Amino acid sequence: MMKGIGLSFVRIGEFAWSRLEPSEGAYRFEWLSLAIEALDRAGLKVVLGTPTATPPKWLVDKMPEMAALDADGRPRRFGSRRHYCFSHEGYAQECERIVELLARAFGGHPAVAAWQTDNEYGCHDTVLSYSPAALQAFRRWCEAKYRSIETLNEAWGNVFWSMDYRSFDEIELPNLTVTEANPSHLMDFQRFSSDQVVAFNRRQAQIIRRHAPDATILHNFMGAFVDFDHYALSDDLDVAAWDSYPLGFLERSSHDDAFKLRYMRVGDPDFQAFHHDHYRACGRGRWQVMEQQPGPVNWAPWNPAPAKGAVRLWTFEAFAAGAETVSYFRWRQAPFAQEQMHEALLLPNAAPNDAYHDVARISEELAMLDARVETARAEVALVFDYESAWAWRIEPQGRDFSYFDLVMGFYRALRRAGLSVDVVPPTAAAIADRTLILVPALFAPSHDFAEALAQSGATILLPADLPPGVLRRIIDIRVRRVESLRPGARITLSGHGAFLRWREFLALGESVAPEFTSEDGETALARSENVFYLAGWPDEELLNNMLRHVAHVAGISTLDLTEDIRVRDNGAMRYIFNYGAASTDISALVGEETLLIGERLLEPCGVAVFRRRDCFQRAAQNTSQDATTK
Amino acid sequence: MMKGIGLSFVRIGEFAWSRLEPSEGAYRFEWLSLAIEALDRAGLKVVLGTPTATPPKWLVDKMPEMAALDADGRPRRFGSRRHYCFSHEGYAQECERIVELLARAFGGHPAVAAWQTDNEYGCHDTVLSYSPAALQAFRRWCEAKYRSIETLNEAWGNVFWSMDYRSFDEIELPNLTVTEANPSHLMDFQRFSSDQVVAFNRRQAQIIRRHAPDATILHNFMGAFVDFDHYALSDDLDVAAWDSYPLGFLERSSHDDAFKLRYMRVGDPDFQAFHHDHYRACGRGRWQVMEQQPGPVNWAPWNPAPAKGAVRLWTFEAFAAGAETVSYFRWRQAPFAQEQMHEALLLPNAAPNDAYHDVARISEELAMLDARVETARAEVALVFDYESAWAWRIEPQGRDFSYFDLVMGFYRALRRAGLSVDVVPPTAAAIADRTLILVPALFAPSHDFAEALAQSGATILLPADLPPGVLRRIIDIRVRRVESLRPGARITLSGHGAFLRWREFLALGESVAPEFTSEDGETALARSENVFYLAGWPDEELLNNMLRHVAHVAGISTLDLTEDIRVRDNGAMRYIFNYGAASTDISALVGEETLLIGERLLEPCGVAVFRRRDCFQRAAQNTSQDATTK
Amino acid sequence: MMKGIGLSFVRIGEFAWSRLEPSEGAYRFEWLSLAIEALDRAGLKVVLGTPTATPPKWLVDKMPEMAALDADGRPRRFGSRRHYCFSHEGYAQECERIVELLARAFGGHPAVAAWQTDNEYGCHDTVLSYSPAALQAFRRWCEAKYRSIETLNEAWGNVFWSMDYRSFDEIELPNLTVTEANPSHLMDFQRFSSDQVVAFNRRQAQIIRRHAPDATILHNFMGAFVDFDHYALSDDLDVAAWDSYPLGFLERSSHDDAFKLRYMRVGDPDFQAFHHDHYRACGRGRWQVMEQQPGPVNWAPWNPAPAKGAVRLWTFEAFAAGAETVSYFRWRQAPFAQEQMHEALLLPNAAPNDAYHDVARISEELAMLDARVETARAEVALVFDYESAWAWRIEPQGRDFSYFDLVMGFYRALRRAGLSVDVVPPTAAAIADRTLILVPALFAPSHDFAEALAQSGATILLPADLPPGVLRRIIDIRVRRVESLRPGARITLSGHGAFLRWREFLALGESVAPEFTSEDGETALARSENVFYLAGWPDEELLNNMLRHVAHVAGISTLDLTEDIRVRDNGAMRYIFNYGAASTDISALVGEETLLIGERLLEPCGVAVFRRRDCFQRAAQNTSQDATTK
Repeated sequence: MMKGIGLSFVRIGEFAWSRLEPSEGAYRFEWLSLAIEALDRAGLKVVLGTPTATPPKWLVDKMPEMAALDADGRPRRFGSRRHYCFSHEGYAQECERIVELLARAFGGHPAVAAWQTDNEYGCHDTVLSYSPAALQAFRRWCEAKYRSIETLNEAWGNVFWSMDYRSFDEIELPNLTVTEANPSHLMDFQRFSSDQVVAFNRRQAQIIRRHAPDATILHNFMGAFVDFDHYALSDDLDVAAWDSYPLGFLERSSHDDAFKLRYMRVGDPDFQAFHHDHYRACGRGRWQVMEQQPGPVNWAPWNPAPAKGAVRLWTFEAFAAGAETVSYFRWRQAPFAQEQMHEALLLPNAAPNDAYHDVARISEELAMLDARVETARAEVALVFDYESAWAWRIEPQGRDFSYFDLVMGFYRALRRAGLSVDVVPPTAAAIADRTLILVPALFAPSHDFAEALAQSGATILLPADLPPGVLRRIIDIRVRRVESLRPGARITLSGHGAFLRWREFLALGESVAPEFTSEDGETALARSENVFYLAGWPDEELLNNMLRHVAHVAGISTLDLTEDIRVRDNGAMRYIFNYGAASTDISALVGEETLLIGERLLEPCGVAVFRRRDCFQRAAQNTSQDATTK
Repeated sequence: MMKGIGLSFVRIGEFAWSRLEPSEGAYRFEWLSLAIEALDRAGLKVVLGTPTATPPKWLVDKMPEMAALDADGRPRRFGSRRHYCFSHEGYAQECERIVELLARAFGGHPAVAAWQTDNEYGCHDTVLSYSPAALQAFRRWCEAKYRSIETLNEAWGNVFWSMDYRSFDEIELPNLTVTEANPSHLMDFQRFSSDQVVAFNRRQAQIIRRHAPDATILHNFMGAFVDFDHYALSDDLDVAAWDSYPLGFLERSSHDDAFKLRYMRVGDPDFQAFHHDHYRACGRGRWQVMEQQPGPVNWAPWNPAPAKGAVRLWTFEAFAAGAETVSYFRWRQAPFAQEQMHEALLLPNAAPNDAYHDVARISEELAMLDARVETARAEVALVFDYESAWAWRIEPQGRDFSYFDLVMGFYRALRRAGLSVDVVPPTAAAIADRTLILVPALFAPSHDFAEALAQSGATILLPADLPPGVLRRIIDIRVRRVESLRPGARITLSGHGAFLRWREFLALGESVAPEFTSEDGETALARSENVFYLAGWPDEELLNNMLRHVAHVAGISTLDLTEDIRVRDNGAMRYIFNYGAASTDISALVGEETLLIGERLLEPCGVAVFRRRDCFQRAAQNTSQDATTK
Repeated sequence: MMKGIGLSFVRIGEFAWSRLEPSEGAYRFEWLSLAIEALDRAGLKVVLGTPTATPPKWLVDKMPEMAALDADGRPRRFGSRRHYCFSHEGYAQECERIVELLARAFGGHPAVAAWQTDNEYGCHDTVLSYSPAALQAFRRWCEAKYRSIETLNEAWGNVFWSMDYRSFDEIELPNLTVTEANPSHLMDFQRFSSDQVVAFNRRQAQIIRRHAPDATILHNFMGAFVDFDHYALSDDLDVAAWDSYPLGFLERSSHDDAFKLRYMRVGDPDFQAFHHDHYRACGRGRWQVMEQQPGPVNWAPWNPAPAKGAVRLWTFEAFAAGAETVSYFRWRQAPFAQEQMHEALLLPNAAPNDAYHDVARISEELAMLDARVETARAEVALVFDYESAWAWRIEPQGRDFSYFDLVMGFYRALRRAGLSVDVVPPTAAAIADRTLILVPALFAPSHDFAEALAQSGATILLPADLPPGVLRRIIDIRVRRVESLRPGARITLSGHGAFLRWREFLALGESVAPEFTSEDGETALARSENVFYLAGWPDEELLNNMLRHVAHVAGISTLDLTEDIRVRDNGAMRYIFNYGAASTDISALVGEETLLIGERLLEPCGVAVFRRRDCFQRAAQNTSQDATTK
């Protein structure tokens, strides 16, 4: 059946420890071997998951202190999944043992094309652990970073409330304090915790690479999840994969009820694309969707059915953004345990469910298109930085300040303008060869990054909190005051929109002039040649106006898309998507071209594709990254 | 004073352990004996409460591990009430000891007409305990149910996340897991916990019955409370009693603010009646109100005064529904401790409070009516099942899915149509001899129940989630998909109303036809002869339309009551109640009959009663249960 | 720079323990000595803080059991501040040691004009601790209060739920109980906890007084904070100081969003004045602002910038109310630790911030005015009682009953009527020589206070819950019923306003007549000669109408101020403040007088001052308290 609808890869094994090793040392790999053989015989490739997200009961009983402790100091117990502390060396060694055995057993099998490490690192708030193991590891991490306790005291400003330590062994974890802990303490604990995840993953990756040097190593990341540095972890992977649940993520988002109702059955039109563009950067061009939602799920507050055509829409969005593979979770609905209400390509009784038919159609269309999927470098780079996400979460200064929402807002406005975007880290390499670079709310840019910006020549927008830091070398301003604004408070810019939530009061140097001004007389958008600084959190109107203005300065032409239409270019192909509830005439976007898929009156969830004759030249230039095909 | 206003029963002793046994083995029963004698001399009967809801300090100190542990693992401490774990054998034996002594001392006293076991089992979330005693008992309960650990692993689907156990002694309680525990694990823990309450009560009931074979044994249940199976516990009682606080329960309900304001001083017009009709089933015809709210209470978020006449209205509702007794909590307000702001028939200074005069009036009216209160079997049965309530709570799939609210919605619509209803368990006996049977959202019907439905001949409405289970034998449908809907999302049925919160996509067998269809083209109400299946959560409009339609098919005539008028038939007597703020002309309902109580222009909180000449025949048929009188 | 803008006092040292004693017994006082010398040389006086709010790490490690336990039983850990239990004797002795050393070292220094004990006692919910030390101390406190356990059982009503104790050593703390603990238990635990704070402070005050007999001893209290009895603690101080953060407190208040938006940049027009008038009573005439907000802070949900002129407005409000000093927190913004986003008079780079210039201007204006600031006794006394605040919090009976909000409502209405008010404790001394006394919601008046009221001759308004208590001797009523009202429920008084949240049903004695009546026929305002009793929680309209009526009866003339204008008299000076967003003509209030500061068209945040010729006579009479000057 899988082959019949065009599937090529099957992921298995990712939670199977209790069946691979029912008791300590009593291995049962036969069933897995049989499964791999069966898939191989059918011409399918296997993505084999390591089972380390679900240590079995006997292992937890053998070393109870392997449990993470939550912020209240309580052990997180057996009975679901992810019940381990990333800092527990004993558990890490158990993981090495089982991964080594699996890699030896299956690393050489020709059908095992890829390996997935663990599963959704950090899911269920599992990055931070307040265990004794984490405490000891954190003390050593601090020692390695600061060398002397005096340096740490100085760096954290521990003098403020007599929080000085006399040695690294006096350091505590920043939980259960009377009021908020020192933000530097929290920040370093977050950095440390992220490092622990990266190190945990690296141990598995190294073992797999030793035994399966030709296999692809990947991990399935999540959406809207910033608890560890995905760029850093991806350095040990070949492919960055992510699990795309458009309806579940929308329900869990911070959007208002009207937005959630409007897109209840298709998802946020920009959320998936943002992650595609981000994980492409994580995977250095190589990325995929590991779990695509095929029907209602079970884990959101409400779980509606996707609109007819939505699964196909999401799949095309992924391929158009350069996905090597789109995989669906899951093949067949299981009538038991935590996800029994999570739908699949097959019903529990093995009959085809709706998405099964969608997949069959997609396979035919992809074959017909014969699209050579490329991962071209975009003219526009939007910087997304994990450390900034942590900083704004630890010290938001206004209750509703969300770094993720702010960057998503920029992304949405860029996409509304029809632009293709790379969502990249704040590194010199990531911003090289760009025409427009956006750097919202960056916490602590490195000197190298500042230097790269200064040399860039690109048009740059810095809507960041910036008490004269290293970035002052590219625009001579000082932030003399910041304020956060409660819901309902607006700082209006006549005709351009308004600031919400956050605004800054700037002092401008001589080389800087106000480009937009607020009605209360402050500089809202400062400009120094091709560098702009936005002094607040823009509402949607301001975002759209300001980004079109900046793009115009950068010499980038924009489209004027209606609310529910989105466009994606991939090589010579242009994809048009309709996220609306009504059919929409897209003739103005198609012009004289011939549609390979879709109609000019594009139906709800419709996808239209055509080959652009005007883009060959540009495409030819953008070959700095390898193009890959599905 | 009690006799003067017509009271016959007085409940005493239910929290008195520290005064009956101030120190271990030092018994002080004299004061209780004196109290019973005094009441007896006045011609009053006593309901004697066992004091097991409030173990005294010395007992808790003697066996500290008797405390329940909350879901966070913290002991629930001494200082209020119900600080015990149902699974602690040591405490259970202490309870047997004190109950045995009380039963011996007072079981033979002619004035002690009834015994109340404990008090409001489960109040303050005390059914579930995560103590070591509960863990041990749960392991044994699982062993008794599943016999082998492989069977349990299979039944729970523990393979899903490597949650397999190797022995019953590896089983954990389902709290403090990283994410939600296995729903089967949660469900069995809930079943076990309910069984523990039933067993705890049975030990007391058996002792009392031994020493007081002629006394009535009862327990005072609560409203809107489903944490244990009240049917099962009632099997060990003679009478099911409940504590009726119309204003307190309304404030705590999920109704919106407009509804709460509208009925602030009279309570939900249907809530009390629902419980009357339910506890009548629990008590196999014998039931009563143990605590009737007489004024403002202290425990709701807000505690308004009842409207003038509301206490009388509530009392008549109870007697009209067959209550053997209506008892008021409490006689005199105590100026101390947790309930010092809870009003009573007397003020703290022993002067009569408002409800005192209400009771005097009610006594006179009841004597005048000389109503022979009957508990006739209703034509309409509404199934209410505890296991279903647990299942929907454990795995609601939509955040606002409340089984209790759904069943209450059905009940409300039936009552708006003037119908008398029995609220019954899903058993063959309970649905025998009915004309219309409603089975909303039943979780796991037994084969016996399905068989009984199939044989019933009644019109049946099954608005349940039903992936082809045993009920498929009575209507050939399959639920191929379910979805939950966020607030604001509506699936409209033109002209009939809409689905909210939940809807299903059906595949119909050949014998089934759509009776109502949604505007998006799905079957909303399926029909196979006299069996209907409703594929979603109906809004109020759909409920009213659909139930009238189904009642019509069943040949049951309905009334068209205005929003605040309710009707109850009891034998030949028809009672009409006005829950509105305005006087209402009820002539259309009274016709040519003569009112024994009340006026045709029925005032707010008014009660009207008349004898129906048209009902003698039917009443004569319905004598399958013993009729009782107050 | 400090001298240059007119500052006279500098507070230092309040969190410096880890730098004064980096390890046990290793004292480092030199840096502090140098700082004091430097300030002295510049002609500045020092307020020296004791560092006991921030015990250093080595001390916490030495006696870990010094930590407070929160209500969940968890130790409150090192890493921020206030991580100590007021009942821990070992820590109290450590505090005595460090305070003794500091007092010896600097008590005789001429520049050290004042001492601040600790810092913001109780901040971050630190008054209540559930530690073993607190338990032992509470048992002894109960023993001292009740002498016999039988007396305690009787007083608390422990019989209610078998909560009797057999000895004081059986007493538990009232946390983690199954449902709410006995309110008397909670109340005594709150009283005890308040006493512990007072005792803790007294030990420091006695040491300082011994070594620095001429220095002023003060503590910096907070706003809207009632967790301990500030009157009692102030008995050990010379001056009551408080920390005034108008914007932060507004954001944290219970006001609705419209109010918070309206006053987002100026603060609640009455909040600061209320505390000025209250702390003046605490300090027996001597009070000051210790920390005046100079810009955005970091700790409220949102932290907007003050309006231009707001810092000056707040400062004049304080001096007009008799402040001896207004001190700003803080001199220079620190770029590290928990309050790095809290602004200061100087920017982090030591350049002047906005408030720096405000302070310079204020200093000039104060010098120009040469105002002799007086603390005259007001005609109107508003009773504010800590025990009442605790009682209503422990047993509110309606979810939104807040004693603080109720008293603030009265204060606001009085101030809208242009009246000067003292906010005083319920003592005979505090209400002597008043024309109008208001006593809202007083919990348990003493016999002495009732006697004083009876003798007073003043017009008295008692809008309190009063089941015939000792106050019945001054107005013959009985409260026969109380009810709490959910939001949206209103008991209207035709033309006068309405009751919200709370209302009482009164029985009037012969000497009492209804002055206002509700539309449902109950007495809303009862009157017996010059004594009034208000039977509910008044909405704003009723408050204004009723207070003007009562003031009229008392012979007190009122002003009719517009919504954002406020007036304050101090001696012969009248101050007018504009809290609105628009300039307002205040000519009607100024009449023929000449403005010393400000314009008749008073700008937003404007302050106007003039000398009243009509008030000399009254001012001369009101000299019962010492007048002090800045």
